[in-house]
Amino acid sequence: MDTRFSSAIHTLILISESETPMTSEQIAVSVGTNASYIRKLTASLKKGGIISSRQGVGGFSLAIAPNDLTLYAIYCAVQERDKFNLFDVHANPNDGCVVGKHITSVLTSTFYEVEKAVSDAMKTYTLANVIDKMKKEIEKE
Amino acid sequence: MDTRFSSAIHTLILISESETPMTSEQIAVSVGTNASYIRKLTASLKKGGIISSRQGVGGFSLAIAPNDLTLYAIYCAVQERDKFNLFDVHANPNDGCVVGKHITSVLTSTFYEVEKAVSDAMKTYTLANVIDKMKKEIEKE
Repeated sequence: MDTRFSSAIHTLILISESETPMTSEQIAVSVGTNASYIRKLTASLKKGGIISSRQGVGGFSLAIAPNDLTLYAIYCAVQERDKFNLFDVHANPNDGCVVGKHITSVLTSTFYEVEKAVSDAMKTYTLANVIDKMKKEIEKE
Repeated sequence: MDTRFSSAIHTLILISESETPMTSEQIAVSVGTNASYIRKLTASLKKGGIISSRQGVGGFSLAIAPNDLTLYAIYCAVQERDKFNLFDVHANPNDGCVVGKHITSVLTSTFYEVEKAVSDAMKTYTLANVIDKMKKEIEKE
């Protein structure tokens, strides 16, 4: 179970909403994991231009406003892939079989069409939307 | 890299289009894997009601016509999950933190909305569509 994506969103909500800078250790306590896992995650998020380190004060800050930070950008940053990808095609189909010869190009274009549906949805959904949803839940308590 | 989904589509094209029943060994040669991997895959596809064994003759046949067999049904069968699921939520968020307390329900509903975009797309895409696409590619050669 790969939960880097959900752990990254959790981390970004903390970074966005906390009044004081949060360290990897403090984030790990809230996410329910260890600090080294969070450090790998924040390294990916920094590399992807999502967060930056706060000079001098420690902790992190968002490099993109929550309103402009899409789930798509977060997902791509934590996956560390150039392009959005949900489904992989098996690596060694047999060229000697007519199906094996054509399966890679056929499935690559098929998966692209399906993945476009989800990437379009993820490009319209922002961190601000997730935070709003959480605030509404908290108010209902 | 989980390629059960693409390997399953490859397997189902072979089962659908082959004039003679294909064994797990023959399917494995085309997919470029080993027969035990294919046997696990065909066991999931049988369990999901996608294929059936051909009594007496060996091999498999489709239990659903290619026109009615959606990528959604194939994906759910090979994942062996009750519901369509692309993104998992981390298991142990800290209830003592307000974000940790609400993250599971907020992300579950957020992911559901995003997953619905892709599951809707996968419900309209059939094995027959993939086979048509392959036939067009073969004709172009």
